[in-house]
Amino acid sequence: MSYSLGELAQRFGLEVAGDPAALITGVCTLAPGEPGRIGFLANPRYRSALAQTRAGAVVVGRRDVADLAGNGLVAKDPYRAFAQIARLFDVNRDFVPGVHPTAVVAADAVIGQGVHIAAQAVIESGAQIGDGSYIGPACIVGVGAVLGAGARLEARVYIHRGVHLGLRCQIQPGAVIGSRGFGNVMGPAGWEEVPQLGSVLIGDDVEIGANTTIDRGAIDDTLIANGVRLDNLIMIAHNCRIGEHTAIAACTGIAGSTTVGARCMIGGAVGINGHIEIADDVVILGRAMVTTSLLEKGVYGSGLPIAPAREWRKSVARVRRLGKLEERVRSVEQKIGIKGQDDGDDGQDQL
Amino acid sequence: MSYSLGELAQRFGLEVAGDPAALITGVCTLAPGEPGRIGFLANPRYRSALAQTRAGAVVVGRRDVADLAGNGLVAKDPYRAFAQIARLFDVNRDFVPGVHPTAVVAADAVIGQGVHIAAQAVIESGAQIGDGSYIGPACIVGVGAVLGAGARLEARVYIHRGVHLGLRCQIQPGAVIGSRGFGNVMGPAGWEEVPQLGSVLIGDDVEIGANTTIDRGAIDDTLIANGVRLDNLIMIAHNCRIGEHTAIAACTGIAGSTTVGARCMIGGAVGINGHIEIADDVVILGRAMVTTSLLEKGVYGSGLPIAPAREWRKSVARVRRLGKLEERVRSVEQKIGIKGQDDGDDGQDQL
Amino acid sequence: MSYSLGELAQRFGLEVAGDPAALITGVCTLAPGEPGRIGFLANPRYRSALAQTRAGAVVVGRRDVADLAGNGLVAKDPYRAFAQIARLFDVNRDFVPGVHPTAVVAADAVIGQGVHIAAQAVIESGAQIGDGSYIGPACIVGVGAVLGAGARLEARVYIHRGVHLGLRCQIQPGAVIGSRGFGNVMGPAGWEEVPQLGSVLIGDDVEIGANTTIDRGAIDDTLIANGVRLDNLIMIAHNCRIGEHTAIAACTGIAGSTTVGARCMIGGAVGINGHIEIADDVVILGRAMVTTSLLEKGVYGSGLPIAPAREWRKSVARVRRLGKLEERVRSVEQKIGIKGQDDGDDGQDQL
Repeated sequence: MSYSLGELAQRFGLEVAGDPAALITGVCTLAPGEPGRIGFLANPRYRSALAQTRAGAVVVGRRDVADLAGNGLVAKDPYRAFAQIARLFDVNRDFVPGVHPTAVVAADAVIGQGVHIAAQAVIESGAQIGDGSYIGPACIVGVGAVLGAGARLEARVYIHRGVHLGLRCQIQPGAVIGSRGFGNVMGPAGWEEVPQLGSVLIGDDVEIGANTTIDRGAIDDTLIANGVRLDNLIMIAHNCRIGEHTAIAACTGIAGSTTVGARCMIGGAVGINGHIEIADDVVILGRAMVTTSLLEKGVYGSGLPIAPAREWRKSVARVRRLGKLEERVRSVEQKIGIKGQDDGDDGQDQL
Repeated sequence: MSYSLGELAQRFGLEVAGDPAALITGVCTLAPGEPGRIGFLANPRYRSALAQTRAGAVVVGRRDVADLAGNGLVAKDPYRAFAQIARLFDVNRDFVPGVHPTAVVAADAVIGQGVHIAAQAVIESGAQIGDGSYIGPACIVGVGAVLGAGARLEARVYIHRGVHLGLRCQIQPGAVIGSRGFGNVMGPAGWEEVPQLGSVLIGDDVEIGANTTIDRGAIDDTLIANGVRLDNLIMIAHNCRIGEHTAIAACTGIAGSTTVGARCMIGGAVGINGHIEIADDVVILGRAMVTTSLLEKGVYGSGLPIAPAREWRKSVARVRRLGKLEERVRSVEQKIGIKGQDDGDDGQDQL
Repeated sequence: MSYSLGELAQRFGLEVAGDPAALITGVCTLAPGEPGRIGFLANPRYRSALAQTRAGAVVVGRRDVADLAGNGLVAKDPYRAFAQIARLFDVNRDFVPGVHPTAVVAADAVIGQGVHIAAQAVIESGAQIGDGSYIGPACIVGVGAVLGAGARLEARVYIHRGVHLGLRCQIQPGAVIGSRGFGNVMGPAGWEEVPQLGSVLIGDDVEIGANTTIDRGAIDDTLIANGVRLDNLIMIAHNCRIGEHTAIAACTGIAGSTTVGARCMIGGAVGINGHIEIADDVVILGRAMVTTSLLEKGVYGSGLPIAPAREWRKSVARVRRLGKLEERVRSVEQKIGIKGQDDGDDGQDQL
């Protein structure tokens, strides 16, 4: 599989810098680069690598064309153009339609055109699989679940009864969509189950990462809007609503009934309380502890970052005696006749 | 499937407010509500919704009866009564006994009466499955494992060799019970494995969430007592003991050999050190960092909650210069002749 | 299965204290201990248990021999010697070679000598399984993946197309190796996929825990060096490199393109930023938030540990008014004519 720079330029609306006949057989990193392959420069920090790269060509922005030592392609968004080119070399999505003999497909399941159902997969009664979908090995699609056209369930994906996926959703191995929401009520003899009768509705072009879990709603449905990107090992609890094109990095957990707006960027290992609201266009930095609604767009963070353990222990001790320090300052102020500011309400109502 | 309010009242020991012949065909939320379905009011915050709800009936407490605009049921614990009613409409637990032809069941496995073993499941040698159990698709029950009657393994559950589950346990998809404890010892050429020869013993009426992992013990067993509720993506390390009716929210991890008491409520994304003890009736708020034993019942928390990133960065910088601030206060005290309080030991022994 | 103390001493280069003919039929904890079984004493904190133990024998270090009440074995590293003995009693790794009839093995897969492929497993085209490997139930080995000799995939393990594992790797249930890296680029209509064309290369003697996920690289490969130990529910993002013999505890997440050195010890639930570097021999305490490179070996930590909720809320409020407290101290200093230290830059560039 190879493409000339000229072909690539034409296909993706780019401009050739250098020899349009140069052949590209794959992609590479900029440093060190590989002959015959194409890399990219998006972050100006790496501009110095342009001179030394062994790459056969580099996708660059207008401002970097002059620094190209060899061939290149000029793009408005070099990273996006590179991604488009890389897709030409991606074998991960190739498949041949057909149903493997070990797959178990219910007689009344509705399987679209050009669908692949791999070994050991299970498609339960009444499930619908849209045209051109790939259902990888050992995936389970529950009773009456609906997958829009172009779905890709990589392997070992679990889709609960009645869950709906829109068009072109891609689910990584081990993800669980529609597990029981964590609804329990204390009875006289211990916890009793609160049935979770809602489902999970997922829009178009959603990606869900490996071993991520999305619980079904208690009464209404858990909602994942179009274009959402969820990384691995994420927990979305029952009745959450995640807005369009929001991206969430790995290991983040969102408790029940929380609403996250559109186009949010949520870092890894963030914890978000239940029953709160995150506005559109909110950025939450990694490992933040979100205890309250964030109603204004903006960038948010929390947490005490890493330090040598000795310093960390001192910081913790100092924070613990902050009350004493405030008292000492108050005593000093009294003695010298300065009126200090009110200490506030000690936050009793804030958390 | 429909029930009159009168039937529901009789079945669950409730009182009808309004028309006992009114038919209920399902459940709904209070706002907006759906005709013919029943909602509930437990949290007084939502009392105002009673007037506008379109629900066919509402389960309420005694104090809210007067505010019912239409039909209702009066319960001591409206949420629990609602859960009981909702169970009548829950199809998620229905199944027909039988063994799917693609399931692999060892000849010497002991399968109880009325058991369903779904497609692609594997029941290994000597395993015992109690009466009325549901073993969902692609579940694996290891050699000699014992499942009490009424078990429900939703799908893709892994039960290791020799693990014991009590009566009526419910395990969500992807959960792993009995994986190898993280026991390693450094040898001359690198880490060597410390065999994990214990098992996992789980009591009655335990629920375990999707993709949660519970490691088997090193020598003795990891213990999960009756009535425990574990949410998704939880890690219980080897030799932990979790007390009766303790509930743990998603993404929480508990390191090895820690004991958690009975009736504890542990929030999401909490991290608990190994080899410590948590007393009965302890509540730990979400995302807390538990580094020491908590020997008194009570509510505990930790962490710096979310703030705009600019404020957060300032807070971090201020905490880092707390030592300097203390020195400044000490200098002031000396200059004006106040004797400040001891700064303590800088916490060297606390963590 | 039983061994005399004399046999054990000879096999593992230990010294008998007491009766070399005493028979050992298994292992036990030191307290209370079990007759006929062998325990160990490594931590001097538990030395007092030596007198009361009911164990048939105890592995001890030289310094504790005098305190043995009964039989024992003397070892330089008692914990390691105990682990070696315990391996004799570990049935978890026993298996009989053969391919289960429900396993799906591609005609062109290369299966070594003495390999077990369990029920419902899937070995795709061109995959290679080294001699003496155990592929547990429902494992999936993708197209062209290579497993070195002595691999053990416990159950439901997913190995993506082209992933390489070295010799003697052990993978716990539910682990996902080679899922798609979280590469996305914003296009005019929403997120577009950046193909992940790299793979995952894993060295020899690596253990990977249950439900842990390791993403494949974007262009180059994600690298896990020899002897690495990963616990459960860990996330290793694309293009990370984890150095030899580094051990990482459960629930830790490492963002993309981060390099971790050799022999590091990383606690549970640690969050590590992308594109940073951790030196060799770094110890990171549990739940730390690693936002910057750690270029010097040493022990690091972060976070505010648990406190009664009332105190915690006060601490949070005090940290939030630290800026005011600094101003108050500044005012005092001015009034009494002390020149305070510079407050610094408020950390704007630190995070």
